[in-house]
Amino acid sequence: MGSTGSVGANALRVVETLGDRFRVVSLAAGKNLDLLAQQILKFHPTLVSVASPELIEPLRARLSEARYQRDLKTVAGTNGQSEAATLPEVDFVVSASHGVTGLVATYDAVRAGKRIGLANKETLVAAGELVTAEARRRGVEILPIDSEHSAIHQCLRSGKREEIRRLVLTGSGGPFLRTPRKEFEHITPERALRHPIWKMGGRITIDSATLMNKGLEIIEAHWLFGLPSRQIEVLIHPESVVHSMIEFQDGSVMAQLAVADMRLPIQYALTYPERAAVNGDIPGLDLLATRRLRFLKPDTRRFPCLDLGREALERGGAMACVLNAADEVAVQAFLEGRLTFCGIPKVIEKVMRATSDASLGTIEDVLAYDDEGRRRAVECVRTLAKGSSN
Amino acid sequence: MGSTGSVGANALRVVETLGDRFRVVSLAAGKNLDLLAQQILKFHPTLVSVASPELIEPLRARLSEARYQRDLKTVAGTNGQSEAATLPEVDFVVSASHGVTGLVATYDAVRAGKRIGLANKETLVAAGELVTAEARRRGVEILPIDSEHSAIHQCLRSGKREEIRRLVLTGSGGPFLRTPRKEFEHITPERALRHPIWKMGGRITIDSATLMNKGLEIIEAHWLFGLPSRQIEVLIHPESVVHSMIEFQDGSVMAQLAVADMRLPIQYALTYPERAAVNGDIPGLDLLATRRLRFLKPDTRRFPCLDLGREALERGGAMACVLNAADEVAVQAFLEGRLTFCGIPKVIEKVMRATSDASLGTIEDVLAYDDEGRRRAVECVRTLAKGSSN
Repeated sequence: MGSTGSVGANALRVVETLGDRFRVVSLAAGKNLDLLAQQILKFHPTLVSVASPELIEPLRARLSEARYQRDLKTVAGTNGQSEAATLPEVDFVVSASHGVTGLVATYDAVRAGKRIGLANKETLVAAGELVTAEARRRGVEILPIDSEHSAIHQCLRSGKREEIRRLVLTGSGGPFLRTPRKEFEHITPERALRHPIWKMGGRITIDSATLMNKGLEIIEAHWLFGLPSRQIEVLIHPESVVHSMIEFQDGSVMAQLAVADMRLPIQYALTYPERAAVNGDIPGLDLLATRRLRFLKPDTRRFPCLDLGREALERGGAMACVLNAADEVAVQAFLEGRLTFCGIPKVIEKVMRATSDASLGTIEDVLAYDDEGRRRAVECVRTLAKGSSN
Repeated sequence: MGSTGSVGANALRVVETLGDRFRVVSLAAGKNLDLLAQQILKFHPTLVSVASPELIEPLRARLSEARYQRDLKTVAGTNGQSEAATLPEVDFVVSASHGVTGLVATYDAVRAGKRIGLANKETLVAAGELVTAEARRRGVEILPIDSEHSAIHQCLRSGKREEIRRLVLTGSGGPFLRTPRKEFEHITPERALRHPIWKMGGRITIDSATLMNKGLEIIEAHWLFGLPSRQIEVLIHPESVVHSMIEFQDGSVMAQLAVADMRLPIQYALTYPERAAVNGDIPGLDLLATRRLRFLKPDTRRFPCLDLGREALERGGAMACVLNAADEVAVQAFLEGRLTFCGIPKVIEKVMRATSDASLGTIEDVLAYDDEGRRRAVECVRTLAKGSSN
């Protein structure tokens, strides 16, 4: 799911490297029909899902132009994505599509007993309790496909969950690690989109600049590894060589280090518990070239999103779902020039304050709170914009 | 074994912390009767071994002075040490006495099916093939009690041996990391004994200054983890926070980090596969205080002992046994002012060159080659001393 996004495309590169180990049964993508057509020509899935029904014909046109003769079922929308994820022949689902539609399909895949490689943020941020309870019930393993949680997963093999003293999620600190607070008001989307380490999509890059990504990761780590907020720490590590760590109660800290290449955590999830040889064109980590590794305390005054993430986790229920929705709206508004960089945490905080504590019993509840969070955030952005134009 | 040495004394502190988990059945020490008597008063072993028979009476005198009333069998020498290590009630042997006598008793403990916590260097350096073959045959687990190999052991839990690309043993680099080569001739024992990180005995400290400790660790790592020399690398890491690493073939590097406190690897070995809570007076690792972690290539021109260790492993058979014997003699001569710092690798190299390749079939062979190595080294020291006095 999300095969034409950066995680999805990298997952397919990994599958290629692994030879006959994997067969691509289905692909779910959005609107990038050119790339999707190329992927179909290469991987021969039996089913493909696109964002909406009107995209099916243009996709078919591209395939017949390329004289593609194989049988292919084409579906669309959220239901299409869920169908792609729950086909009987599917063993493993790479959940890498964005937003709450990805969450619904991932939930369906868990209910169908599929093993999950998880990159979709919403799944655990907005619906962590529901999804992990369901996974436990079905005996489904959820393997993280992001460098931080993959690192934690790898470190945890060296001990037991009950033996953990704390998780240490590391983050590069983003492009504004050293930017003075008074300049924050003037940060433009162009500057914010220049991430020092990873090349990613728009929202993820802005989330890295506000440190909301780490706030969301605290929430995900809680659901993946079953630890309370107070045992999950964030450290800034500008070199992005250590991808995260676990401190055990015996004083040992286990850390995972690697080059910053998404294919590594993807392959780890696909082949776990094995560690397959990685594609030869990915260089090994050169520790001699790193010169020095540093660890710094994050500055939550300049980056209030980090604490907002933690607060949402601690308040529980719908709060993280609302946080996520508000963040998406606020980031979009920032990218479109309708909100300042400092407005992002303001919008999120206002939306959270306006939301009363409530629990999420079903996926429909999640979608309802997601909607409400968005609606409130849109209003909030409008109010803030008016305020600043006065 | 070696209860009054620094590893032994720390092992007893760990046992104390762990409460009823362990009972001290026997203690083997050398000549430090005052400390041994204190340990007996505290831990009530049923058997105690001392270096030689004439020490038994003075020990008994100390105990009666303290009105110690419990039954205690007292034995002495190599046989006494072996008896202490092979008592039927013993499950776990901490092998922390120095030299080849420690090796013989450790070998006996392996043959008696005891689980081993290994700090004695000679066991694997001089007799790695014999001891590990015997351990495999008896299903005995050998758990390293030194920070580097304990780190590797912990990292290996995160993958399989066949998946390892390389081991990375780290070392602080010792006190002469930045000393120019031309000053090496003038290094005094006093300067060499000032180790930046660890407080240890004489030989180990000088081995850290010459980097012979890393040469020996390559050999030990080979026998502990079954990897060839080319897959075992050494990096200098002046901060001594990362205690060693494994790079797996999937590109992940697992590292173990901790404060430099011997009790951590000792407790790890004692409680493995569990990780028990560590004594509260051992501080957690403060990554914020470390400021930066660096990794440097060791300079084998200034520190030729590193390559000598590797060469001994690659030549196999008796060579590492001879290397170890020659190093002990050379270090002793250096400490007594009979050999220069640069003379240490010269002596070892000469002794190795004079030794023809031979395999070690029995522990008696090991002892014979150890003797021969020492004899040759003594001669060599004498010749070098004459040369310099001319």
